[in-house]
Amino acid sequence: MPADLSRVRVVLVRTRNPLNIGASARAMSNFGFTSLRLVRPYDIAFREARSGVGASSILSQAEEYDRVSDAVADCSLVVGTTAARDRELKHTLRRLQDGARIMREQLKSGSVAILFGSEKTGLGNKDLSYCQWLLRIPTRQQHGSMNLGQAVAVCLYELIREDRRSSRETTPRQADAADLDRVTALLLESARASGYLSAQSESSSEEKIRRLVFRLGLPADDVSVWLGLLRQSLWRMKR
Amino acid sequence: MPADLSRVRVVLVRTRNPLNIGASARAMSNFGFTSLRLVRPYDIAFREARSGVGASSILSQAEEYDRVSDAVADCSLVVGTTAARDRELKHTLRRLQDGARIMREQLKSGSVAILFGSEKTGLGNKDLSYCQWLLRIPTRQQHGSMNLGQAVAVCLYELIREDRRSSRETTPRQADAADLDRVTALLLESARASGYLSAQSESSSEEKIRRLVFRLGLPADDVSVWLGLLRQSLWRMKR
Repeated sequence: MPADLSRVRVVLVRTRNPLNIGASARAMSNFGFTSLRLVRPYDIAFREARSGVGASSILSQAEEYDRVSDAVADCSLVVGTTAARDRELKHTLRRLQDGARIMREQLKSGSVAILFGSEKTGLGNKDLSYCQWLLRIPTRQQHGSMNLGQAVAVCLYELIREDRRSSRETTPRQADAADLDRVTALLLESARASGYLSAQSESSSEEKIRRLVFRLGLPADDVSVWLGLLRQSLWRMKR
Repeated sequence: MPADLSRVRVVLVRTRNPLNIGASARAMSNFGFTSLRLVRPYDIAFREARSGVGASSILSQAEEYDRVSDAVADCSLVVGTTAARDRELKHTLRRLQDGARIMREQLKSGSVAILFGSEKTGLGNKDLSYCQWLLRIPTRQQHGSMNLGQAVAVCLYELIREDRRSSRETTPRQADAADLDRVTALLLESARASGYLSAQSESSSEEKIRRLVFRLGLPADDVSVWLGLLRQSLWRMKR
């Protein structure tokens, strides 16, 4: 079964420059991708982004979201992009060509989101907490940060690069972000009920718990068992 | 002998938009290329191209030429880029990844020019006459023409893609079996304490729980947190 490119969600988070949205849409069109999602773009006029030559249908169908969690809810794999090398990353950092191979595998059975942060600051810690792992384009250490539209183009190119070759490997479908959110919510409640976290724990603790869950490679078929385990223990603690 | 990237000449022919010159320079800087040559750019103010973030030295050292022949005079291989598929090409048309391999071979001994035409018309017939063969980025037939800065980025990416020197992958160490056993034991105890499993549960239930844990991609650094969460909730349930 080939990778289904229509399942790729290109998610631009807090993009500042409408030209970059247009350029991203154009690269999507060039390489055969269709689903563009925008999380709180700075400029509402994005639909008129001029450099999206030939990509008007992608731009007009782009979906806007307030939160990353909603933009990736239907995705079984959420991947962040980063220029960082040495940053204290808790996440697995994969070289583009290796990450693309994994994404293509996932695309046989589920949707995959690729997150691109704002031009100025990249993805924030909260954004990263929704990502299973991170992708790095192999740029130079001295000048790692790419132009947004160019980064999108290179990532999408790598995804279609091997399109002629068929692969017969299969991997279990991973839990999607909505499921991981459900697990996270129950685990948080448990951690509070047990006293592991204080009832008024800070949002940073929430993020830590979410990252903990998103770092797991949780198979979709196991989600209901985990939810059952957590619910039952929560019920017992509160009794 | 590795390919010598300083021998690559990125040759932009009759570029109209200074932003594209800047973006090309930025991608060059990202991927470690230095030699930019401009053949009759439409806008002489290219050196101020704003989107060339971090690429000012490349822009300031860019060389300007009146003719393609002069811009490629020192090159042993001259390659043109095109979005054309069916065009009556006299030239060999190579898919980017195949062409890049040949260019890398050439770069061990000589200089290689990659020509990019103007945004509007691409390379003209005269320009093409200086090219040994042509390179095509595998875009869709329905929308083949890429943004110039993005095309440059994708081509240069392909050239460094196999360059392991720029690689620096990090994967967090996965939990070992002893750790997974510890997690499994506590999870089992929890499942019994909560009533999810009966106290006399069969060994097949034990196996199910163990498989559940082993199917996770649990990072080694997260083990102590998970053990803490489980211990605390177990303590609460038993209180």
